[in-house]
Amino acid sequence: MSTVPPSGTPTDDPITDAPRPEARGPRGFQDRRGPDLIAERRIVERVSAVYERWGFEPLETSAFEYADALGKFLPDADRPNEGVFALQDDDDQWMALRYDLTAPLARYAAQSWETLPKPFRRYAFGPVWRNEKPGPGRFREFIQCDADTVGSDRPEADAEILALAVEGLTAAGLQRDQAVIRVSNRKLFDGLFETNGVNDAGQRLTALRAVDKFDRLGWDGVSALLGDGRLDESGDYTRGAQLPAGAIQAIGDFLMLEKLGRGSRSTVINLLADSGLLGAVGEQALTELAAIDRALNAMEVSDAAVTFDPTIVRGLEYYTGAVFEAELLLPTTDERGRPVRFGSIGGGGRYDDLVARFTGQSVPATGFSFGVSRLAAALRASGRDPAGEVRGPVVVIAFSDADMAHYLGAVAELRAAGIAAELYLGRAGMKAQMKYADRRGAPVAVMLGGDEIAAGTVTLKDLDAGRRLSQAVSDNAEWKQARPGQQTLPRDQLVAAIRSILEGSSITA
Amino acid sequence: MSTVPPSGTPTDDPITDAPRPEARGPRGFQDRRGPDLIAERRIVERVSAVYERWGFEPLETSAFEYADALGKFLPDADRPNEGVFALQDDDDQWMALRYDLTAPLARYAAQSWETLPKPFRRYAFGPVWRNEKPGPGRFREFIQCDADTVGSDRPEADAEILALAVEGLTAAGLQRDQAVIRVSNRKLFDGLFETNGVNDAGQRLTALRAVDKFDRLGWDGVSALLGDGRLDESGDYTRGAQLPAGAIQAIGDFLMLEKLGRGSRSTVINLLADSGLLGAVGEQALTELAAIDRALNAMEVSDAAVTFDPTIVRGLEYYTGAVFEAELLLPTTDERGRPVRFGSIGGGGRYDDLVARFTGQSVPATGFSFGVSRLAAALRASGRDPAGEVRGPVVVIAFSDADMAHYLGAVAELRAAGIAAELYLGRAGMKAQMKYADRRGAPVAVMLGGDEIAAGTVTLKDLDAGRRLSQAVSDNAEWKQARPGQQTLPRDQLVAAIRSILEGSSITA
Repeated sequence: MSTVPPSGTPTDDPITDAPRPEARGPRGFQDRRGPDLIAERRIVERVSAVYERWGFEPLETSAFEYADALGKFLPDADRPNEGVFALQDDDDQWMALRYDLTAPLARYAAQSWETLPKPFRRYAFGPVWRNEKPGPGRFREFIQCDADTVGSDRPEADAEILALAVEGLTAAGLQRDQAVIRVSNRKLFDGLFETNGVNDAGQRLTALRAVDKFDRLGWDGVSALLGDGRLDESGDYTRGAQLPAGAIQAIGDFLMLEKLGRGSRSTVINLLADSGLLGAVGEQALTELAAIDRALNAMEVSDAAVTFDPTIVRGLEYYTGAVFEAELLLPTTDERGRPVRFGSIGGGGRYDDLVARFTGQSVPATGFSFGVSRLAAALRASGRDPAGEVRGPVVVIAFSDADMAHYLGAVAELRAAGIAAELYLGRAGMKAQMKYADRRGAPVAVMLGGDEIAAGTVTLKDLDAGRRLSQAVSDNAEWKQARPGQQTLPRDQLVAAIRSILEGSSITA
Repeated sequence: MSTVPPSGTPTDDPITDAPRPEARGPRGFQDRRGPDLIAERRIVERVSAVYERWGFEPLETSAFEYADALGKFLPDADRPNEGVFALQDDDDQWMALRYDLTAPLARYAAQSWETLPKPFRRYAFGPVWRNEKPGPGRFREFIQCDADTVGSDRPEADAEILALAVEGLTAAGLQRDQAVIRVSNRKLFDGLFETNGVNDAGQRLTALRAVDKFDRLGWDGVSALLGDGRLDESGDYTRGAQLPAGAIQAIGDFLMLEKLGRGSRSTVINLLADSGLLGAVGEQALTELAAIDRALNAMEVSDAAVTFDPTIVRGLEYYTGAVFEAELLLPTTDERGRPVRFGSIGGGGRYDDLVARFTGQSVPATGFSFGVSRLAAALRASGRDPAGEVRGPVVVIAFSDADMAHYLGAVAELRAAGIAAELYLGRAGMKAQMKYADRRGAPVAVMLGGDEIAAGTVTLKDLDAGRRLSQAVSDNAEWKQARPGQQTLPRDQLVAAIRSILEGSSITA
């Protein structure tokens, strides 16, 4: 490798007085732990179980790809500052950390095409890396989860991905009415462009990215971006797509159609068919949408879960047909309580040319992708905090070094019974240990003092009950006398008693 | 970032005739899919469930660390070619991908110490990266799984890690008698060194690495490496630790002790106590081992699962007390059927100085680590192929475009019943579809031809039964007539019939 750290790194000998490195994680990266992390893993587990039940097999490619295999398919060419983490291997080849899971799939499919079952359904999850300017809530490493079908040009493959996405979001914890997947087809716009004489690929892409802002900017903003350009509130000027007036008019008419027709998928299809705005390519899009609708109906996916919305375009240039956008349908608020639009929680579509980059042969593909942290945030916004379901372990208190065997025996018994439990292994006193139990989110503290051991008993402190009672009872003396949630019972009833507390705590508020 | 790919990367426009990138993964990295990957994930899931039940919380640090935070704690300083993947961030700081999960834990603990519950029990799994020369079975990215307790100097913390490792290996699928964890204590050798006047840290480390080869080289090889040096079969000369003859003699006596005393943990302790070889530091090691033994007994961890073996040292210089080595106890063979020693499947120990690198304050820590692919290999060697438990989905055959709704309905019904199922979404004929089903490891093919749909029936082909019968029946005509494992039944019995086939196939061979 040609890139090695400079010499003069501080020595790491803890004995000497050499300068010590600062303990900090790299800029724009995060450490995650505890209930939040467990909650995100549960999302991945539940979604993976759905994906496997749907016949999608897992694929794990390496973190690195050769830079030429990633090519120009960078996350968003609108922002030229964005990029990848790249380095040169010791054989001088440039490698880069993957920035999504689609580019590695395309490389893998091209490389392994002969030996794969075809069509090839695969799902994948794992970190992706983007060498972007970090900001609040904007990290340079995050977990994505993708499902794709490679090698099927059937609209049923798109429909299956949509039904799978609905099922995955539900399995993750969203209620059926809390999310919707909006679907359109790139070819609708290809048809509009074609009938209105817009044939330049760059012009088309700029126009699509303008349409992508319809929700945020409205028609005034979008029409400016389709034409000469737009001056925003901050005074920045964005150059427009320079479309002829007739094309802008047609796109405007097209976008307005949608407002009239928020209805069932078949209503939207009829509306588009009757509009007279689509050329031959647009008609092809309609045929595909109609087949997707039939397949969704066969799988009993409701019009509420998957709608057709012709204003959906998505910013990535590689989509060639159906495009999908999953959206949270909830009034959400920011940290100051102001209403905010949560926006997209995932998306995807059909991309028929990614494998062809390598092989020259077009291989049809379609998929759906979501960010795991973003879905966790959506679940929190939906009132279902996945981290809230995670309980800490039962904590066994350590009173005396001489009695460690008793504590270890109790903790082993609980674990063997399937109850998460741990022994306090520090050297602090009783008060600090109760604070520790609280910090760990422990539902119960187990106390085996000398008296209990001698008497063959054990004392349990129901920490949830204690928390509830300490809020309810205002008189401190009364509270102390009540010893809320504390009970002493025969030692051989330990497991049964804790089970009963745990079951109770999940029922009572 | 100062390291950007050179310009002139092949264009990725599939339309133009520009040079195409080659579809290949980077050298020394691997793609993994299907049953093998699912099997490794099940190992991680099962082990994680144990670790969480034991009160270890998950922690996920980022892939990158600042290079100075990793310091000199490279995987194995014996091999200077080994290193890390490093690059310079756009603020000129050097970052490197983590090469293990211990260094990031030390950095995280130092950074977050004030806010952590103490002692801090955490487990972690994820990829680590080593910039090594790749070779057969030797990859530059692999998954590790670690559990550590930071902030407890109690021998009970070491004992808990050992009991946890035993439980984790069992949960992963190893029988109790198929693995053993050997335990020793670095201070035994510190005592030997001290009483024999070996005080140079470098000399001590070289001597420990020599002892680490005792299993492989025997005493002749080790004693040469403790003295002047050793010429191996290939003609390479390794310079020795240059210990005085008395020290070599004492180490020899010490290593021979073990041969006499393969017995219970208490037998080994008594043997060491009676040996007269240990100095004051060695006595301290004995006291710790005795406390670990008491704690293991309290948790009912048998002498067969965890043994004391004073020849265990482990090569990493950061261990300061107890050291652990998990070993597969099975006669294993290589691909040519020759017997091979499988060797270590995991290890760990106590390292009290890693956090001090950052803070200057010593923080006691202990942990256990294993490589997930290596454990999967051990499970295969143990006769339990975790990939063999993984079944493919039921495959619904596609006969006619006009009947897609029928196929989709059937596949949706199966999935809703919790049965992994998929519809063939390609455009090939019947024969290719059966081959596809076979490739997917499908247990059953579902056939809804025009006749079946008209009659309200469905035909199921039990592919496992077919595979068994085609092996048993030699007469091809007879086989064809028998239509092994094929049955036609009312359409509304689809789910029940497939359930019954799946349950049967898991019982019968």
